[in-house]
Amino acid sequence: MSKQLEISEIVSICKMRGIVFPGSEIYGGLANSWDYGPLGVEIKNNVKKAWWKKFVQESPYNVGLDSAILMNPQVWVASGHVGGFNDPLMDCKECKTRYRADKLIEDYLFEKGKDAVVDGWSNDQMKDYILEHEIKCPNCGSLNYTDIRQFNLMFKTFQGVTEDSSSEIYLRPETAQGIFVNFSNVQRTTRKKIPFGIAQIGKSFRNEITPGNFIFRTREFEQMELEFFCAPGEDMEWFDYWKNYCLKWLSDLGMEEESIRVRDHSAEELSHYSNATSDIEFKFPFGWGELWGIADRTDFDLKQHGNHSGKEIIYTDPMTNQKYVPYCIEPSLGVDRVLLAFLCNAFKEEELEDNDKRTVLQLHPFLAPFKACVLPLTKKLKDKAGEVYSELSKYMMVDYDEAGSIGKRYRRQDEIGTPYCITIDFDTLEDNTVTIRDRDSMEQIRISIAELKSFLEKKMEF
Amino acid sequence: MSKQLEISEIVSICKMRGIVFPGSEIYGGLANSWDYGPLGVEIKNNVKKAWWKKFVQESPYNVGLDSAILMNPQVWVASGHVGGFNDPLMDCKECKTRYRADKLIEDYLFEKGKDAVVDGWSNDQMKDYILEHEIKCPNCGSLNYTDIRQFNLMFKTFQGVTEDSSSEIYLRPETAQGIFVNFSNVQRTTRKKIPFGIAQIGKSFRNEITPGNFIFRTREFEQMELEFFCAPGEDMEWFDYWKNYCLKWLSDLGMEEESIRVRDHSAEELSHYSNATSDIEFKFPFGWGELWGIADRTDFDLKQHGNHSGKEIIYTDPMTNQKYVPYCIEPSLGVDRVLLAFLCNAFKEEELEDNDKRTVLQLHPFLAPFKACVLPLTKKLKDKAGEVYSELSKYMMVDYDEAGSIGKRYRRQDEIGTPYCITIDFDTLEDNTVTIRDRDSMEQIRISIAELKSFLEKKMEF
Repeated sequence: MSKQLEISEIVSICKMRGIVFPGSEIYGGLANSWDYGPLGVEIKNNVKKAWWKKFVQESPYNVGLDSAILMNPQVWVASGHVGGFNDPLMDCKECKTRYRADKLIEDYLFEKGKDAVVDGWSNDQMKDYILEHEIKCPNCGSLNYTDIRQFNLMFKTFQGVTEDSSSEIYLRPETAQGIFVNFSNVQRTTRKKIPFGIAQIGKSFRNEITPGNFIFRTREFEQMELEFFCAPGEDMEWFDYWKNYCLKWLSDLGMEEESIRVRDHSAEELSHYSNATSDIEFKFPFGWGELWGIADRTDFDLKQHGNHSGKEIIYTDPMTNQKYVPYCIEPSLGVDRVLLAFLCNAFKEEELEDNDKRTVLQLHPFLAPFKACVLPLTKKLKDKAGEVYSELSKYMMVDYDEAGSIGKRYRRQDEIGTPYCITIDFDTLEDNTVTIRDRDSMEQIRISIAELKSFLEKKMEF
Repeated sequence: MSKQLEISEIVSICKMRGIVFPGSEIYGGLANSWDYGPLGVEIKNNVKKAWWKKFVQESPYNVGLDSAILMNPQVWVASGHVGGFNDPLMDCKECKTRYRADKLIEDYLFEKGKDAVVDGWSNDQMKDYILEHEIKCPNCGSLNYTDIRQFNLMFKTFQGVTEDSSSEIYLRPETAQGIFVNFSNVQRTTRKKIPFGIAQIGKSFRNEITPGNFIFRTREFEQMELEFFCAPGEDMEWFDYWKNYCLKWLSDLGMEEESIRVRDHSAEELSHYSNATSDIEFKFPFGWGELWGIADRTDFDLKQHGNHSGKEIIYTDPMTNQKYVPYCIEPSLGVDRVLLAFLCNAFKEEELEDNDKRTVLQLHPFLAPFKACVLPLTKKLKDKAGEVYSELSKYMMVDYDEAGSIGKRYRRQDEIGTPYCITIDFDTLEDNTVTIRDRDSMEQIRISIAELKSFLEKKMEF
């Protein structure tokens, strides 16, 4: 018997165990910012490694990139972010509460049990709809709003010593544009032929008005984006390839099938340049939420940058000599968000025999913060336990715990997701064997110290 | 016979081979921003992994953290950055060129062959010195400057929908403060006892007036910082411990002894709160430059945050029940800067027999972007080569190259630092053995495919 945890329970364990702390907490925090603690940073690094392993290291198609957060502001003119990356904001004149007009309508429709897609509506359309359907201020109940105005979501800052507009730059709202502007540099230096992809992991920033749900939506977040370039006409084939590749990545890392669904965007929802877009969604405790957006962006981005920079981005097929602007498939995933999904997927409360209970974090060993914990049965065995700990630490993250009963120590490791507990007992001194306890089955086997490294490495493979 | 490369040669190879590109290049760049290409991102990730391995994974003392870039602005009041993190700026009234007054004096002293330390001088002291010694404008030769004013080096931005000062926040200028404000959270959740350390890798931002020397000093940069907490009185012992630990890290990764020196700060140079500070310097092609700053910061930071937040940060020794504010040793290293040092250290131009020459990047295998390259002797062998490539790719970054003569392919791999070239020939089809060529000695041995993984893993160890 096991049950999933509520989001409030997950937030509380995360804080108690050092996975995620509220940001700047001793100063009362900074709205919706979060710090990853000693265990959280390991899980986060493992999520990034798992993505890099499958999307760069093992892929014969893709190479990596790490472009700067601060870019020439013309990049964001070309990408459309300066002109069009806005939230439609509106204040209640009575109680001064600020709303996103589109969210107000979506919430209204959602309550009526209708599908809610307000993307692409004009300000006037939204205001008219709100007045016509008498969507009242959720805070004070009045129907007296300001006009809707567009608020750009990019954080801006100033480089250099003056604050005039010539030195105004932005924190990137996505990593993708750093890839597009480097397309020619990467293609030339790697001599890659189409089809090939460029993958990047890095921080992005969006000045969201309504962030929330723990680390699901935050103003500062980390992305893992692939831009995969192919010949026009072959895009739908590659779109399917990468959608399935992403689904396999999630399932190989232990994501349960019933918690995942794919939502294909309807024709009305699609951006004008997109041939197809699908969202891989995860069933969070607070409802289904977008995890991975996979979009066929056609040649839109490379053409935009070609036009704006005056440096046309054209690929010449070395076999046919055909020249074209490559099409692009973009699977885009948030590190923080998929980490939250892995935690929601893996945290279980289990009822054991004898009316006992345990909380267990059943992360895939590749993702677990510690691969093993070394436990001396008594403090007399700490020298031998220390030796085993030091040797394994050369190859992987290992914990060490000598405090409390073995049962209590097992429970603690269960809760932080350690897949294997290695107990050093008095037999160990005689024959160099140890007991290994499996987190999930709670079964124990005895193996020799010399086999530990390869035993654990095998379990981490995916 | 081998010689080091000039910085201009390194910049040029970096661009040509996809290690480092100028940022936003197709838009004419963004002053002093750089993007890491497909090879650069691998080297950078390896530098970070190498640091994490020794400073977190293998250290029984330290744990990791990943705190947010955006923090409550009170953090920067407490740390002294709002009040004191300034450059003294001064304009030439004649030609309008802007200068850092301290740099102007330092350059003047440097030309006179004197040691130049202007830290801690007041604006008046600097202005008087400049006038008294008639340090003229290097651009136009006149001696007609504006007064010196302090310019804060933090990038500021605005969170939320208004641009009033209540929503003004900063991009962090260092990762260290994210550690200090989390001291209690980390100590409580890990149950660590003093002495212990908290390590963090992450981006920081400084609005430098005079960045430069390629990736040596950039406005956006990545740091690897350890804050190590110990009992007062034991600080000098730990200061020495970490200084030596840092030096060993560099030398274990192949840094040549004669390119490294330690400079201890004199009493006058020390911050008022510091008991000792040493810089580990590297001999860059453009001169000696600071690589690693190791500082004994006493209890200054934790006390500041205790005072400003109203939440005293006190540690209670569980054995003696003694209560105190821990002292702190801080070894602080820039990822981009040490990466540049590794490149400068490893790039060699070698004269070979027969008047031949090669450029070789002799990075430690742990740092090399590819651990091996698989080369089929002829295209007929590409299936077998593909098998070897796929199998090794599960465990490490591997390149594959079938274009051009074997000799040319070797040279290309030499230049990008690949420690081993694996050649598949017709014998491979018979007996599953391959030739492995060593990048540095250029010697070749024959081993079986089954041994490749462990052979390469052994070479990467450090």
